[in-house]
Amino acid sequence: MHNTQYLDTFAINLKNKHWTMAYEKVKRSDNYSEWYNNLVKHADMAEHADVKGCMVIKPYGYAIWEKMQAELDKKFKQTGHVNAYFPLLIPKSFFEKEEKNAEGFAKECAVVTHYRLKVDDDRKIIVDPEAKLEEELIIRPTSEAIIWNTYKGWIQSYRDLPILINQWANVMRWEMRTRLFLRTSEFLWQEGHTAHASSEEAIAETKQMLDVYADFAEQFLAVPVIKGVKTENERFAGAVETYCIEGLMQDGKALQMGTSHFLGQNFAKAFDVKFQSKEGKLEHVWATSWGVSTRLIGALIMAHSDDEGLVLPPSLAPIQVVIVPIYRSEEELEKVSQEALKIKQQLEALNIAVKFDNRDTHKPGYKFAEWELKGVPLRIAIGPRDIENGTVELARRDTKEKMVKQIAGIDTQVQALLKDIQTNIFEKAKQYRDSHIHTVNTWDEFVEALDQKGGFVSAHWDGTSATEEKIKEMTKATIRCIPLNNTQEAGKCILTGSDSTQRVLFAKAY
Amino acid sequence: MHNTQYLDTFAINLKNKHWTMAYEKVKRSDNYSEWYNNLVKHADMAEHADVKGCMVIKPYGYAIWEKMQAELDKKFKQTGHVNAYFPLLIPKSFFEKEEKNAEGFAKECAVVTHYRLKVDDDRKIIVDPEAKLEEELIIRPTSEAIIWNTYKGWIQSYRDLPILINQWANVMRWEMRTRLFLRTSEFLWQEGHTAHASSEEAIAETKQMLDVYADFAEQFLAVPVIKGVKTENERFAGAVETYCIEGLMQDGKALQMGTSHFLGQNFAKAFDVKFQSKEGKLEHVWATSWGVSTRLIGALIMAHSDDEGLVLPPSLAPIQVVIVPIYRSEEELEKVSQEALKIKQQLEALNIAVKFDNRDTHKPGYKFAEWELKGVPLRIAIGPRDIENGTVELARRDTKEKMVKQIAGIDTQVQALLKDIQTNIFEKAKQYRDSHIHTVNTWDEFVEALDQKGGFVSAHWDGTSATEEKIKEMTKATIRCIPLNNTQEAGKCILTGSDSTQRVLFAKAY
Repeated sequence: MHNTQYLDTFAINLKNKHWTMAYEKVKRSDNYSEWYNNLVKHADMAEHADVKGCMVIKPYGYAIWEKMQAELDKKFKQTGHVNAYFPLLIPKSFFEKEEKNAEGFAKECAVVTHYRLKVDDDRKIIVDPEAKLEEELIIRPTSEAIIWNTYKGWIQSYRDLPILINQWANVMRWEMRTRLFLRTSEFLWQEGHTAHASSEEAIAETKQMLDVYADFAEQFLAVPVIKGVKTENERFAGAVETYCIEGLMQDGKALQMGTSHFLGQNFAKAFDVKFQSKEGKLEHVWATSWGVSTRLIGALIMAHSDDEGLVLPPSLAPIQVVIVPIYRSEEELEKVSQEALKIKQQLEALNIAVKFDNRDTHKPGYKFAEWELKGVPLRIAIGPRDIENGTVELARRDTKEKMVKQIAGIDTQVQALLKDIQTNIFEKAKQYRDSHIHTVNTWDEFVEALDQKGGFVSAHWDGTSATEEKIKEMTKATIRCIPLNNTQEAGKCILTGSDSTQRVLFAKAY
Repeated sequence: MHNTQYLDTFAINLKNKHWTMAYEKVKRSDNYSEWYNNLVKHADMAEHADVKGCMVIKPYGYAIWEKMQAELDKKFKQTGHVNAYFPLLIPKSFFEKEEKNAEGFAKECAVVTHYRLKVDDDRKIIVDPEAKLEEELIIRPTSEAIIWNTYKGWIQSYRDLPILINQWANVMRWEMRTRLFLRTSEFLWQEGHTAHASSEEAIAETKQMLDVYADFAEQFLAVPVIKGVKTENERFAGAVETYCIEGLMQDGKALQMGTSHFLGQNFAKAFDVKFQSKEGKLEHVWATSWGVSTRLIGALIMAHSDDEGLVLPPSLAPIQVVIVPIYRSEEELEKVSQEALKIKQQLEALNIAVKFDNRDTHKPGYKFAEWELKGVPLRIAIGPRDIENGTVELARRDTKEKMVKQIAGIDTQVQALLKDIQTNIFEKAKQYRDSHIHTVNTWDEFVEALDQKGGFVSAHWDGTSATEEKIKEMTKATIRCIPLNNTQEAGKCILTGSDSTQRVLFAKAY
């Protein structure tokens, strides 16, 4: 058998503290939450910082974020947006101008009160009590306030509109219970903030950006999403309407992956931003905002990974192909390296990110396990016997399938395989998601679906916030969204029995 | 004359508030500082935010920053670095561990003391007094403290080294007197933080990154720089040695454009970061850090621009070529547009950023002035008469030279011209800089050079901080650096007459 030569060497040194392999695996089925934390840690994605609620995004995790940024940034620019940068700190008086927005974020705001430290008599560093700010500054939890305060100076006429701006930034929302990527006090994101002359145009922008997010999630993250609109309870503080994309994780919990808000004239009114219309009338400006964050890295991990580690879709994998040489002597290594480097060059010519792992400190089996843990989509193993046969061994991360392929034409073979892996990862996630949308008509069915099956539960609801809150209290499930493509259908609310005109999607969620 | 048809239409409507042209020009020679502020404002680069000391970087300014980021990021990766992200907030107890670093930055630190707001009885938003942090958090003025606190957990053995990490981030240093891009409380930058097993390797890294910065400044920003080392007075707080690149602005003031620090074992000792060497000994890790910031945008403006506006080197210009159609009727516009779009497509195929300015709200002359103000390197004007002749009119922003060129082969012509413009802008700045390095031997000559001529003054100095400070008090000039390629030369200090072994470069600086 072709594979045994590799399997023979498969022995991971669990004692070697130096490598990330020195960890005990946790199975998804045993403890999903611990499996996730374990994976984030040992695949070198991120770690908790020694600053309450904050994280350090490690190079491997950050490389994925960079890939997301590059793709999203391209999509934003293709749809006419430009980037800009607004201040981190927001004076409290601006912050409180849009009342709902302020109340929505007040409980999680980090506040700057002083602008200087000093060295005291014991040579200790203390906050200088004489450097107290007259007005406290809030670290942005989101930037509508500071941006609309700025737009006021930019907009006089309909000719100044639309303004289509995006910002890549860090934001801070003080969180008590944190989870790496999914919920941290500081996180990275992009926030689009646009200004328009009409309600119609702003709504079209809101929906356009939702589509951009949905396409990105499905085509790049390979996570199928449901596009929908939030109920009043779950709406962004200050929005007229919040659109969202909702994904499903492998434990049956939903994850909100991106939101796009139609803000109406709320911020324009709060910050007194008016424009002269073509007809010469003075009107308040219409607004949108939309954002996705490093939370998407969490979604990526939770949607696809398995008990062996990450499973990264090729389009976001920092390393798409790893080549592992198999050898017993220096001479063999040299021979194998030559061939491996030729293959690497060929693949790189097709814009494929390749790592040749020629570390002599670890055996092939160890390397196989390490790159599986890190989710590299495709592995190529090549030894002297392969070279004799003019072949290499390929191993897919997603299906764990192994194949022997001719070296001649390997570049286009790999390219096709990566495409297939991308599609397969998406299809697998979609199959899971589709088989986890349960349509129920009674309270008992509802509770059973939530507790026994997990996933989305499609049910009738009477449309009131009170009922929604009661259901949340009783089951922990929230209304994730009212799907955009919803069919109208008469029915009875699962809790109150009141009339309902359509089903909504409930789920337990992150 | 070919040009007159365009000159005839040159009439700027100074009353049109909508466009950035509605401003009074300020000449460099009249008031350099006001000229700069005016330019930053009217070229739409940035503006002061309504947050003390902070700026809004507007889309046109941010587009230049994005170009800088892309190029620097490529260079960092080519030299083996990876990106990561560390927390914005630093607990005060970490911050004070490296004493010199803490004292150096203490006076300019924004301090977070509370983590929650609340709505009081009058529905006003107030800082919740019950949400006071046990330990104050500092907004990073630089990240050595938080990063070395993290590295402690990452480094045990020589096999964990080197760590070559860069971070793109915002930082905050509370400034009382601000100037857009050059000195603001919040700014954007990158900060490299590397860890090494030996002093030699760390010093080599420090110098390598200085070279990366120097190449970038000269080849992309087209600003000639002097590489040197700082005196103790001007050294980064916590560094053993600070290397720098110094540029010269058109008012004869120097500007520090980037620094690369050899930190020795200072931070490793402060945060107790040790590694086991190959020989099995436990040693403190060696460190470097290096950074450049949005200040470079200020350097770019100050080094090249003229009384008409920005002069952007092609490699950093968001728009490299603007095409302005000349026409009197809809029919003519259509004809001209067809030809213009063909040219645009040809140029874009060569990766040239082109804007076709077909706004029908403004006359060509207005557009010419606007794109001059915005520093677009090359302008193409095309009218019906040009099409008949198979030519277009090109105008260079740097020399204001106008040329008639055949449309056939225009793409490679433009490509060559852009290259020439890049070189010419650099050469012009270099000529200015080279003619503003004055070698002096007496105090009178020194003062005269500083006051009458401006630029760098090369003079002997006795090597003491006391003398340096005294000179600063008397003349406002500081020692910008001891050039790396300095020749050893016996002499007498210009102030004290004490022995000196080499000249250093003084200048008034931003």
